[in-house]
Amino acid sequence: MARTAVDTESNWFDDDELAQLRRKLPMLYVDVIPVRLDALGNVSEIGLLLRVDGDGRIVRSIVSGRVLVHESLREAIVRHVEKDLGPMALPKPPASMTPLTVAEYFPTPGQSLFVDPRQHAVSMVYLVEVEGECSPQHDALELTWFDAEVILESAVMDELEPSHAILLRRALAHAGLF
Amino acid sequence: MARTAVDTESNWFDDDELAQLRRKLPMLYVDVIPVRLDALGNVSEIGLLLRVDGDGRIVRSIVSGRVLVHESLREAIVRHVEKDLGPMALPKPPASMTPLTVAEYFPTPGQSLFVDPRQHAVSMVYLVEVEGECSPQHDALELTWFDAEVILESAVMDELEPSHAILLRRALAHAGLF
Amino acid sequence: MARTAVDTESNWFDDDELAQLRRKLPMLYVDVIPVRLDALGNVSEIGLLLRVDGDGRIVRSIVSGRVLVHESLREAIVRHVEKDLGPMALPKPPASMTPLTVAEYFPTPGQSLFVDPRQHAVSMVYLVEVEGECSPQHDALELTWFDAEVILESAVMDELEPSHAILLRRALAHAGLF
Amino acid sequence: MARTAVDTESNWFDDDELAQLRRKLPMLYVDVIPVRLDALGNVSEIGLLLRVDGDGRIVRSIVSGRVLVHESLREAIVRHVEKDLGPMALPKPPASMTPLTVAEYFPTPGQSLFVDPRQHAVSMVYLVEVEGECSPQHDALELTWFDAEVILESAVMDELEPSHAILLRRALAHAGLF
Repeated sequence: MARTAVDTESNWFDDDELAQLRRKLPMLYVDVIPVRLDALGNVSEIGLLLRVDGDGRIVRSIVSGRVLVHESLREAIVRHVEKDLGPMALPKPPASMTPLTVAEYFPTPGQSLFVDPRQHAVSMVYLVEVEGECSPQHDALELTWFDAEVILESAVMDELEPSHAILLRRALAHAGLF
Repeated sequence: MARTAVDTESNWFDDDELAQLRRKLPMLYVDVIPVRLDALGNVSEIGLLLRVDGDGRIVRSIVSGRVLVHESLREAIVRHVEKDLGPMALPKPPASMTPLTVAEYFPTPGQSLFVDPRQHAVSMVYLVEVEGECSPQHDALELTWFDAEVILESAVMDELEPSHAILLRRALAHAGLF
Repeated sequence: MARTAVDTESNWFDDDELAQLRRKLPMLYVDVIPVRLDALGNVSEIGLLLRVDGDGRIVRSIVSGRVLVHESLREAIVRHVEKDLGPMALPKPPASMTPLTVAEYFPTPGQSLFVDPRQHAVSMVYLVEVEGECSPQHDALELTWFDAEVILESAVMDELEPSHAILLRRALAHAGLF
Repeated sequence: MARTAVDTESNWFDDDELAQLRRKLPMLYVDVIPVRLDALGNVSEIGLLLRVDGDGRIVRSIVSGRVLVHESLREAIVRHVEKDLGPMALPKPPASMTPLTVAEYFPTPGQSLFVDPRQHAVSMVYLVEVEGECSPQHDALELTWFDAEVILESAVMDELEPSHAILLRRALAHAGLF
C-alpha cells in the first residue's frame, strides 16, 4: 500500500502512542515542492526524491512531514527540507505562509483526492526555493532535478506517489507553468 | 486571561485527555469571519458575536473552533457557523479552501502575533458569506452586524478578542476594504 | 486562427482605433469560469458557452472580456457574465478581487502558455458562482453545465479554446478538484 | 496634489499621446514592496524610496510603474526595481504572478481606496525580495530600509504616499506581520 504522506518522526512518540493520536486528531503536515528559480523568478527545475516505500516499491516524492507541537510552519518547512536534502540545502520559505493549496488526506478513499491509510492529515503546501547544495539523506536514495517545463509530460509523473503528482500539478499551475 | 482561540468541543474528550493532547500535537482550527455581500460581491457587513469570556469579561469574537478527526474543513466551517449563528444561518464556504491567511497561535507570547495560553493551534482563516437568518446560540449573548466600511475605525475593535481583531483586519484587507 | 481571448466590445472604439490601441498598451481582461456550488461550497458544475469562432469552427469557451476605462473589476465581471449568460444569471463575484491566477496573452507563441494573435492582454481569472437562470446571449449558441468532477477527463476539453482549457484546469485545481 | 501611482515612462509616448491613451483604457501597473528576508523567509526589512512629488513635497514611496506593451509582469517588476534601486539590486520576483492584492486606482475619489488623478490604473501588487546592493536612481533621493516589525507603528507611515501606505499594510498582513 502506498504511503501518501510521508512521516519520519514516529520516533518522537512510540508507535503505539502515535497510532492512538492519529485516531483522535487531524495531523498537521507541510508538503514542500523544492524548486530552482531563474533570474526572473520562473520555476526552472523541480527536485524530487527517490525512495523505497513501505511496500518495497521505488517511488519518487516531494518533501513532506509533520508539524511538531510548538514548531512554526517555517521551522517545519526548513527542518523537513534539511532532513531530506541535507544541511547545506538552504531552503527559502516564501514570504507568506498562506499555502498555494491545502491537501486534506483521509483514510477512506473517495472522501477527497488525497488518501492516507494511516490517518486524517491536513497539509499546507508550499513551493520552496532551494539555493544550496543538496544531498539526499536517510531513506532517500537520490535527489533529481527535473526541467519544470517538461516534467508534467514525462514518465516521471507515473513514478510519483499519486498524491504528490496532484500537488506538483497544482504547484506548477500556481507558478504559471501548467 | 483572554481566550484567543475559542473551543467549545472540550466535551468530545474529557478535560484531562484534551489537555494531554494539547501538549502533544498542534491543534487544527478554522477561524471564520461571517459576512454579508452586496450584489457585486463587496463585503458590506461583518457579523460579530458577543460572549462572556473565561474571566467574566464581555468580548466580541468571530466564529472559531477545532477541526475534528475525519471532518473536512468545509464541514468544520459549516458546523461552527451553525453552532454559533443557528441552524438557519446558511453559511456558504468559499470555492477554494486556500485560506485568506493562516494564524499560528502559541502559548508563549512573542513567538507570533497570536497567543493561546492553552495550546499550539494553527488556524485556517476564511471569509464566509452567511445568507440566512442568524440567531446566537449557546454561550453567545448576541450577534451584531457591523458596516464593513467603518468597523475598523470604530470602538468595536477594542471589544474584539485581540487575535480576532488582527484576523478581521486581514480579512478586510483581503476583501479590498482596508 | 483561434480566438484565444474573446472580445466583443470592439464597437466601443471603431476597429481601426482599437487595433491601434492594441499595439500601444497591454489590454486588461477578466476571464470568468461560471460555476454552481453545492451547500458546502464545493464546485459542482461548470458552465461553458458554445460559440462559432472567427474561423467558423464551433468551440466552447468560458466568459471573457475587456475591462473598460473607469470600470471596476467587479463591474466588468458582472457585465460580461450578464452579456453572455443573460440578465437573470445573478453572478456573484468573490469577496476578494485577488484572482485565482493571472493569464498573460502575447501575440507571439512561446512567450507564455497563452496566445492572442490580436494583442498583448493580461487577464485576471475568477471562479464566479452563478445563482440565477442562464440563457445564452448574442453570439453564444448554447450554455451547458458540466459535472465538475468529470469534465477534465471528458471530450469537452478538446472542444474548449486552448487557453480556456488551461484556465479551467487551474480553476479546478484552485477549488480542490484537480 | 499627490502622485498616487508613479509613472516615469511618459517618454515612451509623448505627453499628449499618453494623456489620450489614459482617457481610453485602464492602465496596467505593478506595485512592488522591496523586502529583505531572514533565513526562515520572514520579512525583516522594508525598502522605501524618498522622492520629491509633483507638488514639491518630499514623500516616501514603494516601487511602482507601468507595464509596457509586450512586456511580461516579471520583466516589468525587474525593470522597475532596477530603475529605482539600481542595476545591482538583484530583485527576485516570486514564483507565482498571482498578486498579493490588486489595487484599482480611479481619478474620482470615493470609487475605491486608491486615487490617481491622472488615470484609471489597475495594479498588481507584489512583495519582492531584493538580495543585492541598492542605490537610489533618477528622481529618488534616498532608499532606506526599515524594520518590518515596527514600521507600521512609526512616523514613516505618514510620510508614505497614502495609496502606498495601504499597500504596505496589506503586504505586511500577507506576510503575517500585521
